[in-house]
Amino acid sequence: MHEDRFAPPPRAFTRSVPIRFSHCDAAGIVYFPHYFDMFNGVIEDWYKDELGHDYAELIMAGRYGFPFVHIECDFRIPSRMGEIIDLTLLVERIGRSSLSIAIVCHRDGIERLRARMVTAMMSLETRQPVPMPPPLREAIEAYRRRTAG
Amino acid sequence: MHEDRFAPPPRAFTRSVPIRFSHCDAAGIVYFPHYFDMFNGVIEDWYKDELGHDYAELIMAGRYGFPFVHIECDFRIPSRMGEIIDLTLLVERIGRSSLSIAIVCHRDGIERLRARMVTAMMSLETRQPVPMPPPLREAIEAYRRRTAG
Amino acid sequence: MHEDRFAPPPRAFTRSVPIRFSHCDAAGIVYFPHYFDMFNGVIEDWYKDELGHDYAELIMAGRYGFPFVHIECDFRIPSRMGEIIDLTLLVERIGRSSLSIAIVCHRDGIERLRARMVTAMMSLETRQPVPMPPPLREAIEAYRRRTAG
Amino acid sequence: MHEDRFAPPPRAFTRSVPIRFSHCDAAGIVYFPHYFDMFNGVIEDWYKDELGHDYAELIMAGRYGFPFVHIECDFRIPSRMGEIIDLTLLVERIGRSSLSIAIVCHRDGIERLRARMVTAMMSLETRQPVPMPPPLREAIEAYRRRTAG
Repeated sequence: MHEDRFAPPPRAFTRSVPIRFSHCDAAGIVYFPHYFDMFNGVIEDWYKDELGHDYAELIMAGRYGFPFVHIECDFRIPSRMGEIIDLTLLVERIGRSSLSIAIVCHRDGIERLRARMVTAMMSLETRQPVPMPPPLREAIEAYRRRTAG
Repeated sequence: MHEDRFAPPPRAFTRSVPIRFSHCDAAGIVYFPHYFDMFNGVIEDWYKDELGHDYAELIMAGRYGFPFVHIECDFRIPSRMGEIIDLTLLVERIGRSSLSIAIVCHRDGIERLRARMVTAMMSLETRQPVPMPPPLREAIEAYRRRTAG
Repeated sequence: MHEDRFAPPPRAFTRSVPIRFSHCDAAGIVYFPHYFDMFNGVIEDWYKDELGHDYAELIMAGRYGFPFVHIECDFRIPSRMGEIIDLTLLVERIGRSSLSIAIVCHRDGIERLRARMVTAMMSLETRQPVPMPPPLREAIEAYRRRTAG
Repeated sequence: MHEDRFAPPPRAFTRSVPIRFSHCDAAGIVYFPHYFDMFNGVIEDWYKDELGHDYAELIMAGRYGFPFVHIECDFRIPSRMGEIIDLTLLVERIGRSSLSIAIVCHRDGIERLRARMVTAMMSLETRQPVPMPPPLREAIEAYRRRTAG
């Protein structure tokens, strides 16, 4: 299998995640559902640390939800206990209430897996989609611009 | 949103899964990585109970691994604590060492989410793909035939 | 290490749990936090199937919470992928709003691990302990009587 | 309930952990098995960053296992999504192959929960307890001395 090189855009949001004992299965590699949990953690940190919108506040005080409507993921290279992987978040498309992002997992310049995830913003009260609040939308637009290839 | 009706093929493998407290997030609905864990459990049960090949034996004694190479999932209707959902496994394509399955989550005849998952059979010793052992392959082929639409 | 035999009281509530791939660590045995998740599942089932009080309803509609205030657990024999373990729930003490239970994990008459868990019933609105509703309390008392050694 | 103040010893090993969406239950507080997973992560980091013994290496290359034989935990104050908690590891007792530690979870000088956990060092090959290797033992002894009250 050929290797896919990956260099994140200079101002892209990247988090390093240590592969822990608890992430790994009997073969010593990450059990795949844990990746999705890591991705959600990266998204939380991106909202708070990059966009300046506290994820917990949006949910608990704002009563917003961010359910995923579509996920796809290609797994290329497994990750092993003790490794540290980098997860880079890129914005692909911003809709009225939906957001398409990519999360690229890489290490030493080689792509290990890539997920595309589409989320919708909804009200936890009405359980209906709601348009993204303008300040959040603008922060996401600005992030997309400054990280566009 | 229109509802998608789903009726599993008569002889398809279906497992009912109760949505537990631990599956649910602060909105009271399933946190999505748990679905993938449920799917893996259904696949294990399918190997053992439907195909007659013990999944734990294949891994621990046979030293086979079944890493996922591609996953995609459409989430239509969330599931809530206390509900019981049905997960039906269908075979889409059988390759030399790869297997494409669909898992449909449904309740009361309505589809809630659907995943397509491609797995590869590999050796845990060489970490290379290996062709499926013929008895396993034949069991999967037979399952596909008897559940074909 | 000597083995501890365990025979559940005749009318005790027992659930069998298959040890799955996802429960196991790189040594092929259950990663211990998963036991606590299994225990919570047994407690849910006990409320619903044995006591006749739907756990999800108590939380979502009744706005009760059941936080643990104390847990202790002795781990004697590890469990391996593919095994099926039995979890038996016993009531040790019923307080005004607190409940002390034991969960014994056993297989083939041998005790593998035993947990003592103390939970408090609280209101999710006031976040204060509340006395157990009399019908629930009576159901728990009756269970304790019919399973007393 | 009175509050328990906690100040970690000056040179004690402490890790800050953000409470994520995925840690929390339908009441918006940490689902308790996740604490044990956090504790295991802190222990891994302590081995590597404080003791200078790579946990993943010990397991994968050294073929050691560190199963828990006893755990007890008092839960005093729940933690909520978006909070950052501090976890401090203290050594209570060092045996021939066993190690007793305490993990104290605190925030703003107030203790939230405290666990005592006894682990045994074993060989993954023989599945028998083994004495701690002297360099590891000495590193743990030194840590205990420099963090003793």
